[in-house]
Amino acid sequence: MPDLSHHINRKSKARQPSPLKDIIKFMGQDGMISLAGGLPHPSLFPVEQANFNCITPLAPLHGEGNGSRSAGETADLTIGRDLNGGGLDLTQFLQYGSGAGNRQLIDLCKQLTDKVHTPPATYDCILHPGNTNAWAKVVGLLCEDDDYVLVEEYTYPSAQAHWIPLGIRAAPVSADADGIQAIHLNDILEGWDEAKMGARRPRVLYLVAVGSNPTGITISAARRREIYELSVKYDLIIVEDDPYYFLQYPGYNPSAQTTSTFKAKEPSDFIGSLIPSFLSLDIEGRVIRLESFSKTLFPGLRLGYFIANPTFIERLLRATEVETQDPAGLSQAFILSLFGNWGVDGYLQWLQRLQFQYQTRRNWLLDAFYANFVVLPAAESPVADAQGLVACIKSQSDQSLRPVFSFVDPGAGMFVWSEFYFEGVTRFAEIEKEGGEDPEQAFAGELWKAWATELVLLTPGSYYHPWQGKDKTTTKARGAVARTAHFRFSFATPTVEQIATGVERVRSVVDRYWV
Amino acid sequence: MPDLSHHINRKSKARQPSPLKDIIKFMGQDGMISLAGGLPHPSLFPVEQANFNCITPLAPLHGEGNGSRSAGETADLTIGRDLNGGGLDLTQFLQYGSGAGNRQLIDLCKQLTDKVHTPPATYDCILHPGNTNAWAKVVGLLCEDDDYVLVEEYTYPSAQAHWIPLGIRAAPVSADADGIQAIHLNDILEGWDEAKMGARRPRVLYLVAVGSNPTGITISAARRREIYELSVKYDLIIVEDDPYYFLQYPGYNPSAQTTSTFKAKEPSDFIGSLIPSFLSLDIEGRVIRLESFSKTLFPGLRLGYFIANPTFIERLLRATEVETQDPAGLSQAFILSLFGNWGVDGYLQWLQRLQFQYQTRRNWLLDAFYANFVVLPAAESPVADAQGLVACIKSQSDQSLRPVFSFVDPGAGMFVWSEFYFEGVTRFAEIEKEGGEDPEQAFAGELWKAWATELVLLTPGSYYHPWQGKDKTTTKARGAVARTAHFRFSFATPTVEQIATGVERVRSVVDRYWV
Repeated sequence: MPDLSHHINRKSKARQPSPLKDIIKFMGQDGMISLAGGLPHPSLFPVEQANFNCITPLAPLHGEGNGSRSAGETADLTIGRDLNGGGLDLTQFLQYGSGAGNRQLIDLCKQLTDKVHTPPATYDCILHPGNTNAWAKVVGLLCEDDDYVLVEEYTYPSAQAHWIPLGIRAAPVSADADGIQAIHLNDILEGWDEAKMGARRPRVLYLVAVGSNPTGITISAARRREIYELSVKYDLIIVEDDPYYFLQYPGYNPSAQTTSTFKAKEPSDFIGSLIPSFLSLDIEGRVIRLESFSKTLFPGLRLGYFIANPTFIERLLRATEVETQDPAGLSQAFILSLFGNWGVDGYLQWLQRLQFQYQTRRNWLLDAFYANFVVLPAAESPVADAQGLVACIKSQSDQSLRPVFSFVDPGAGMFVWSEFYFEGVTRFAEIEKEGGEDPEQAFAGELWKAWATELVLLTPGSYYHPWQGKDKTTTKARGAVARTAHFRFSFATPTVEQIATGVERVRSVVDRYWV
Repeated sequence: MPDLSHHINRKSKARQPSPLKDIIKFMGQDGMISLAGGLPHPSLFPVEQANFNCITPLAPLHGEGNGSRSAGETADLTIGRDLNGGGLDLTQFLQYGSGAGNRQLIDLCKQLTDKVHTPPATYDCILHPGNTNAWAKVVGLLCEDDDYVLVEEYTYPSAQAHWIPLGIRAAPVSADADGIQAIHLNDILEGWDEAKMGARRPRVLYLVAVGSNPTGITISAARRREIYELSVKYDLIIVEDDPYYFLQYPGYNPSAQTTSTFKAKEPSDFIGSLIPSFLSLDIEGRVIRLESFSKTLFPGLRLGYFIANPTFIERLLRATEVETQDPAGLSQAFILSLFGNWGVDGYLQWLQRLQFQYQTRRNWLLDAFYANFVVLPAAESPVADAQGLVACIKSQSDQSLRPVFSFVDPGAGMFVWSEFYFEGVTRFAEIEKEGGEDPEQAFAGELWKAWATELVLLTPGSYYHPWQGKDKTTTKARGAVARTAHFRFSFATPTVEQIATGVERVRSVVDRYWV
């Protein structure tokens, strides 16, 4: 494994371990009386017991059926204090933690990591309070102010909202239906002109590689290998922010019934069905994986974990000690007691149920696309160079097909990313003629308002434009395709009826503009 | 109220609100179908109910008595989902929050603030995941790299461990038994030489103003008014990190029995007995108060709140959105349901019990000092310029009193800070003669090891030295008093027997060296 410590930035390098660590070694000694501690007294925590009523992995979901469940379909997870023998002792979760997190919970995270990813290089884990904070800590570990960070062509806005104020800019890598293109990544790195760009060549590649938010794209296995090879060639660190990893779906089939029934696979078959993570390819320890329980259990836990090489983990721990300390104790206790009841295999069953649920919702949305538009494979569509599928409408005058938007069947995650085509739309032509700075965004804004007036909301694609600096915000300056704009559809929360009606409303506004 | 926005640093100023905020306004509209959300579906959170078994404010503590409690001494706090009518709905605490925190909980924090501090200026509150993170966010709000921060003469090491790597240095303000000295604060600010110091005049004063860690000192009411006036004169922001505010004790009386019994005052009398906070003096909105439930409920909650002027709160919220999001949902639900059961007045009773418990522990430690040393008021002691009380031993040869250490009766908090006198200690004189760089710290280290060998641990004072740069780390370079060094005694967790034995062990090593 190569030494990657040169990636640690100036501030992170300067962090010192707490001198209290020296004392802690002595504290465990037989008969030692410590007048050196700084912790409050545990008899003064007013909680005696925590109990969580949870469902078992295959029980009816919350709100499903009549709400009553049979015996064995729920489990009472009870965490008491000063237990004799078995069980978790609640006291340790009420007290200050160690920074890294509860040792048993870290071991569980490692067990999951080994089972799901079998990382080829030495790694370590520490807990973090959610991927938002995890990414902020990674920026604090690796980036100098004014660096460039390599990101997907469209990227998660909260991630960049953190680093834009630091002066960091995005170097976006263009993508096709298989994810970011290795050839383009190579071009950027090979041709990097430090003088022209005013910054060193990027060293960090940030990816939501499965069911990307917003594009829904999952980077293919072959593409992953090419990207990893480039990361070795150009000494990159890959930050794999992967909240949707377990929400991978088989391809949508418009002629199949969406109401198939759920059947759990064997845990190993389930794991085998998932695309290999970057971590699983990482022979050199240059992947930092951000894991989260937000999408698999619930977001309010504010708990996830880092997987990275031990050098990086040690520095992340130093940052954790002074920036956040370890995640909330009740969250740590909850997860440990849930796994105590479910087991890792039960968790892997539960993940399959989630996968099935979100897959069904993905189907609802694409069903609605097929019901409201004529959907064609890109190659058979009237649009040159489209990716995936193109949703068209039939012209009322000559029955010809007019393209409205293209999209890629999201093989994972919660979103469908759509590229709308404004070519030939009369109102867009008018706006273009007015000579504004960014006619595409002006018309996209008008379209968004028309939809909102019809009572359907989409997310404007502009939220996901990588920040390349103040002079690169318009469609033209960004180098985006002229006469197009993007919108994101989410299928995670609406009902099947809402999705059907919502897409009808989208269509009714399209009918008005795309006449 | 003056405009204090010039205190916001460059990076914090550059933070933008999330564009998603624009959409949220539309989401509440009647009949709106949102395909714009990014949240997971709440039916897929596997928890049905959380229950916390808590004690009532005046019930026996954990581990007290035989462990069984009578009816009415415990309360089951149950938080379910989809409640009809009353109660908290657990679902909102499982889902992503708003960044600021649950609205009801923020209202509760404001209610507590009004009741305890009645701030004279307009303020706002948002939640944070503990004071460690809160302080990191305040540094992110106010400090530029390479600034100086005004701190107490001895300061909390984790606070500075965060900013030392940023290049920030400490400008320590010397203190007496009433806390940092206004006259010295004025000297530092009046005489600040930007060219010589290589940085602008400090603008941030960081204080643990009640029961300071490590010194145990509480800044007196009169001193507080002087310091606040200086903050107006020199345009300072005061950061009041105040975890021990409710742990204020009447002065120690060596001739009183420590085993008095607890009696709760009326809530308003209790509040009236507490020293006025800086917040309560803050007519200009220049105090940022960091509140925490870590010492009053339990640390594992990782939950506290900021109180500050609305301009600062808005910026802290922007940082919260991209750095941490709001605290863990189970912690928020716990506090709300506990207050639902206890009421604010019940909480104020509970705080008095804590106060009494820690006061008793403070007494145990000072009892042990009096049992093992001859303790004299500084003015009657053999040490010139000592503060508070001086612990002496009787010389075996001539029965004269030899000073060992001075300390101030800690009127609050969990710690006693001691200044040891090495004058006339033979072993120290030897070390001094060897001509090392810092004989005081060398001997303090030897003393610490001798205690550890005798099975008692104190915290070395060096942990609390403010960081003034690499060239100012020795006793001499720091300008500290020659032939002295500090140690911190903690009385929060050891038993009365451990404290008695621990101080005996301290004394036995003293006997060996102070012959």
